Amino acid sequence: MLPNQMVRSLIGKVIRVEMKGEENELVGKLESVDDYMNIHISNAVEYRNGEKIRNLGTLVLRGNNVILIQPYEE
Amino acid sequence: MLPNQMVRSLIGKVIRVEMKGEENELVGKLESVDDYMNIHISNAVEYRNGEKIRNLGTLVLRGNNVILIQPYEE
Amino acid sequence: MLPNQMVRSLIGKVIRVEMKGEENELVGKLESVDDYMNIHISNAVEYRNGEKIRNLGTLVLRGNNVILIQPYEE
Amino acid sequence: MLPNQMVRSLIGKVIRVEMKGEENELVGKLESVDDYMNIHISNAVEYRNGEKIRNLGTLVLRGNNVILIQPYEE
Amino acid sequence: MLPNQMVRSLIGKVIRVEMKGEENELVGKLESVDDYMNIHISNAVEYRNGEKIRNLGTLVLRGNNVILIQPYEE
Amino acid sequence: MLPNQMVRSLIGKVIRVEMKGEENELVGKLESVDDYMNIHISNAVEYRNGEKIRNLGTLVLRGNNVILIQPYEE
Repeated sequence: MLPNQMVRSLIGKVIRVEMKGEENELVGKLESVDDYMNIHISNAVEYRNGEKIRNLGTLVLRGNNVILIQPYEE
Repeated sequence: MLPNQMVRSLIGKVIRVEMKGEENELVGKLESVDDYMNIHISNAVEYRNGEKIRNLGTLVLRGNNVILIQPYEE
Repeated sequence: MLPNQMVRSLIGKVIRVEMKGEENELVGKLESVDDYMNIHISNAVEYRNGEKIRNLGTLVLRGNNVILIQPYEE
Repeated sequence: MLPNQMVRSLIGKVIRVEMKGEENELVGKLESVDDYMNIHISNAVEYRNGEKIRNLGTLVLRGNNVILIQPYEE
Repeated sequence: MLPNQMVRSLIGKVIRVEMKGEENELVGKLESVDDYMNIHISNAVEYRNGEKIRNLGTLVLRGNNVILIQPYEE
Repeated sequence: MLPNQMVRSLIGKVIRVEMKGEENELVGKLESVDDYMNIHISNAVEYRNGEKIRNLGTLVLRGNNVILIQPYEE
């Protein structure tokens, strides 16, 4: 499964995302993703070192600043 | 809704933007956005840790340095 | 007005530019800009925290490292 | 062997990856890679200074934030 | 004069270059430049805070990591 | 000689490479390079401040994270 297909297979599921230059990570439901790995997430929650910081709700992440995407396992 | 469509749906509304390598965040009215997520904002205000730093007025942000865009909820 | 049009409308005027990973900001006359937001500035002056650091004269900034462009208001 | 061919030759093998702006490195099985060096890894493990930090499982890394890829030799 | 034309007009002359995430700056003779602002410099010298650090000789800089290019005035 | 031609002329020779956001530099034999300056190196050695840190062997570097490439002179 190619990287983009792997990410698409996570639509509708909860993912964990690390962004470039950010200490915090985001966990939320993947609503959509495009060819550049721009990501639309709902019910996003910000975590630092495993601790919840705050709810962020709906947001869009710019693909070129994504470091890592994976399925979230609580 | 694809990520770009999600951002376009916010035109005319107040958004919150995090930029790469910046501690501060920006809140302002989304005037326009293009396919690269370059963003034109009016009445921009700079915040740090939830505190207002200064008014910046009208500005353009380069899309590839955008980390996160979301609707602003006071 | 799209972001690129907004920046083009500033040609011949004094702009303020923040660059990625730089503490200092630049103020100067926008001579030209291309589709990548590469920027040609004359009479550039470097500022830090509102204080003038030095005159830089004529320079070119690489578009993908631009964070923010706006009209400069003294 | 061109750089992309070199990386493709590692599919099915264990690789070591350094990502931009990250202190930690990742070791895991290369499942797939595309033309942008987006990478799909399984059984990923995070290391810092040669010490194992945690298991991360399956993940996708954004190609433009890859610094270095190489075969992993224990 | 467009930004790329401005840089091309400096071929054969001594330029000053700031690179992303680098404290030091480079001064050397611009041998060639392409559409991505990749730069070929000869007789490059590395400076920090106006002090010469070392001679680097001939080198190539990747365009997307260029922050600033300008004519060098001693 | 254009920047890409300059880099290609180094194939088969030992080069020095600085990567973005990395304190260490790499020295090794340039096996191949493509249009994006993705680089395939063999016998790579990691240096910091002129001191050898470790042998890294064969590796691939992502072109957009290259800062500087030059012939290595011991």
